[in-house]
Amino acid sequence: MAGPPTRTERLERLADRQEIEDVVLRYCRGVDRMDRELVRRCYHADATDEHGSFRGSVAEFLDWVFPLLAKYTSTFHLVGNVLVEFGEPGLAAVETYGIAFHRSEREAPHLNLISGFRYVDRFERRPVDGRPQWRIATRTTVVEWSRVDERAGWWPTPEDVRTGRRDRSDVVYEVLRRIG
Amino acid sequence: MAGPPTRTERLERLADRQEIEDVVLRYCRGVDRMDRELVRRCYHADATDEHGSFRGSVAEFLDWVFPLLAKYTSTFHLVGNVLVEFGEPGLAAVETYGIAFHRSEREAPHLNLISGFRYVDRFERRPVDGRPQWRIATRTTVVEWSRVDERAGWWPTPEDVRTGRRDRSDVVYEVLRRIG
Amino acid sequence: MAGPPTRTERLERLADRQEIEDVVLRYCRGVDRMDRELVRRCYHADATDEHGSFRGSVAEFLDWVFPLLAKYTSTFHLVGNVLVEFGEPGLAAVETYGIAFHRSEREAPHLNLISGFRYVDRFERRPVDGRPQWRIATRTTVVEWSRVDERAGWWPTPEDVRTGRRDRSDVVYEVLRRIG
Repeated sequence: MAGPPTRTERLERLADRQEIEDVVLRYCRGVDRMDRELVRRCYHADATDEHGSFRGSVAEFLDWVFPLLAKYTSTFHLVGNVLVEFGEPGLAAVETYGIAFHRSEREAPHLNLISGFRYVDRFERRPVDGRPQWRIATRTTVVEWSRVDERAGWWPTPEDVRTGRRDRSDVVYEVLRRIG
Repeated sequence: MAGPPTRTERLERLADRQEIEDVVLRYCRGVDRMDRELVRRCYHADATDEHGSFRGSVAEFLDWVFPLLAKYTSTFHLVGNVLVEFGEPGLAAVETYGIAFHRSEREAPHLNLISGFRYVDRFERRPVDGRPQWRIATRTTVVEWSRVDERAGWWPTPEDVRTGRRDRSDVVYEVLRRIG
Repeated sequence: MAGPPTRTERLERLADRQEIEDVVLRYCRGVDRMDRELVRRCYHADATDEHGSFRGSVAEFLDWVFPLLAKYTSTFHLVGNVLVEFGEPGLAAVETYGIAFHRSEREAPHLNLISGFRYVDRFERRPVDGRPQWRIATRTTVVEWSRVDERAGWWPTPEDVRTGRRDRSDVVYEVLRRIG
């Protein structure tokens, strides 16, 4: 870029950054609420994903991950650090740190794991439905550590306390509907 | 909205989003530092809160939560994902993921819990003290999981290492005072 | 400040905030990837750091922390809440919540710790290499809690799953190179 950025360019950059972060966050919601369409729309149609032992297209990823998600009773993908760096126009490198909590009804340790991970993404801004959108072009998931979430330490949620739902009955959809 | 947003509208949206996130973060500081006034100012005066077995007005919530906080020796509310979605003017649906760490001097497991939660908030922008402000209008807390933070695994903080304080003597207030 | 902020001032504030958050996030990357230069550039040259039992200049901090990092096989500094408050021009108080995961090959519990912490920073905007930059002027690390990451609960990462590297061979550098 020649010279310092103009005010418009700085605003664009901030808006781009927010749009990218929102995609990262909607991905987490989509997985945890089992909202397949929400996850799909985080990727460009020709995107690729590497996730644990899986490597493939976004369509293949969706076919792989949703049956896996169904094995758990709940998942919770908390993400922190979302570091966005811009390159050539329409390209960004995005690194996200997160911890994923998986629980199931079964005693199997591999179905009750807590994992620290990083999503290392190449985002691209390209037209989708006639409008330029930042979406994931390639995602590489890096597993940093995993530990068993041992049942002996679970503390049961009391009956009168609200818990999450994995469909449109979760309270987040209710609040969304009510803001119009 | 008719047509694409203007530059001013895009800037407003980014500023709104930041203001909302700051409220979510100040709530955590207020709880962890036991700063009741800071928590109160995160809500509109007529706000409601659902938090575990509690349901009531913000005034009732404050009267319920502060004696509960006093039972712990420390709390630590780390939040990650803050996904803000705007609706009708002055309305936003805000979902925040977090992990809360509670520790007490007592051996009781329910006083030494780690919980994964989501705050699902309806934010409204309304005049407060003569200035429009984004604050929580309704908050619903969703408990995703809890586990006992067993004392056997605690690692004591050495005497010469700084720890948090639950009043104005915490270092964050010192740094705030010094920036003027 | 006299009167409400102008549009330009609001944009500047948002850009400042983003620049500060990016420094906090690059610090985490620098530590976890053992990228000393990246960590160094998060601080002003005359900055000070208080970190556990360490207190000293940024140069001393780097000489202290990198040999310590080398004792671990991996570290993972996830940060959530980054609350930025501005004071006099060029000054900001920044509080960051995080959880640091440390693992080593050795059985020693103090080399396999998980800690909840807060970074309480004074940021200053000052010329660096001829351009005003927000960097850390003083950092105080507050340890909130620590627990042993007991090996009994570790779940091994399968051979065919990508793990993090602590040098330029980590995938994040590859993605960065490819965006130009």
